Amino acid sequence: MRRSIYLVLLHHPMTNRRGETVTTAVTNLDIHDIARSSRTFGCQKYFIVTPLEAQHELVGRILSHWHSPRSKEYHPARFEALSLVRLVKDFEAVKAEIKAEAGVEPEVILTDARIQPNSVTYAALRSEIEAGVQHERPLVLVFGTGWGVAKSFYPEVHRILAPVYGPGGSQESGGYNHLSVRAAVAIILDRLLGH
Amino acid sequence: MRRSIYLVLLHHPMTNRRGETVTTAVTNLDIHDIARSSRTFGCQKYFIVTPLEAQHELVGRILSHWHSPRSKEYHPARFEALSLVRLVKDFEAVKAEIKAEAGVEPEVILTDARIQPNSVTYAALRSEIEAGVQHERPLVLVFGTGWGVAKSFYPEVHRILAPVYGPGGSQESGGYNHLSVRAAVAIILDRLLGH
Repeated sequence: MRRSIYLVLLHHPMTNRRGETVTTAVTNLDIHDIARSSRTFGCQKYFIVTPLEAQHELVGRILSHWHSPRSKEYHPARFEALSLVRLVKDFEAVKAEIKAEAGVEPEVILTDARIQPNSVTYAALRSEIEAGVQHERPLVLVFGTGWGVAKSFYPEVHRILAPVYGPGGSQESGGYNHLSVRAAVAIILDRLLGH
Repeated sequence: MRRSIYLVLLHHPMTNRRGETVTTAVTNLDIHDIARSSRTFGCQKYFIVTPLEAQHELVGRILSHWHSPRSKEYHPARFEALSLVRLVKDFEAVKAEIKAEAGVEPEVILTDARIQPNSVTYAALRSEIEAGVQHERPLVLVFGTGWGVAKSFYPEVHRILAPVYGPGGSQESGGYNHLSVRAAVAIILDRLLGH
């Protein structure tokens, strides 16, 4: 029995290019691309987190369209992917919904550009997932937007996954590390769950 | 010495949902996301192929903006990624530019949803790339848009890479295979070139 995986895309608290804490905008393609990747790799749910009321109205309208019977009939694959999406106000709501579903709070894993002491490798986390280690405890993968997750979120985080690099290696060694969040999500799900 | 890799996003000849041959529209995010993934994984160039004059005007304007000194100063990482993009009319132009650069025509590898007799696995192709097998011959990875590459393109293709599946397995065995092209490109480059 594999550990169950939830995915989170945070829009607050994020940093901007000057290091200030901001709320980023939800983009339509982040909804679709990440929902399709979540469905492909068997994630339980994909939470989009933003505190902004106006964004809830806009994104809510988009989701209602895709959750309609007409979308189910004409775009069944898209309907199926979008049905995983949950739009919530904050990370507390994410944890509450997972706890209600799984009976226990999830382990929180952040993907981050900085190598940290509590980091875990892709290979190690993949083995844990496959072996069902602590499988009663679901795992939530958190992705940031903008210039990355603000430090004020760190107390929520249990472990950190190292960033994705190409053949050039880490940024310090001349590698380039500017993947879109859509690409990073796809690669990380494939590394942990692909076959 | 690793084989050099080129990436192609085809907008013609594609099929639509009814199996008719069409030309799809270039999307802004396909330009950016795939350029960033190409740069991350060390591709030589990223060709966007469309025969439509109007699309050349539009995409040409976007690329000029990103190739400007102002972009280089304010968005160096984006500038670097976008500098890999070439906008061309057809696949002949892709082959001609690669031949002019490498002295030899490339081997053409298509990513396709159908398993075919001349298919190659990710592991085998990755070993070839690392070992530099036939390394004098560059490799071009072709990705489609819309509902996939039309059969009229097949005579160009030397080998086929199997599609990406999640833990559910192939579509025939109940798996889900509706990744965005942006996600598929990211995963495939990581499987062939990531570390």
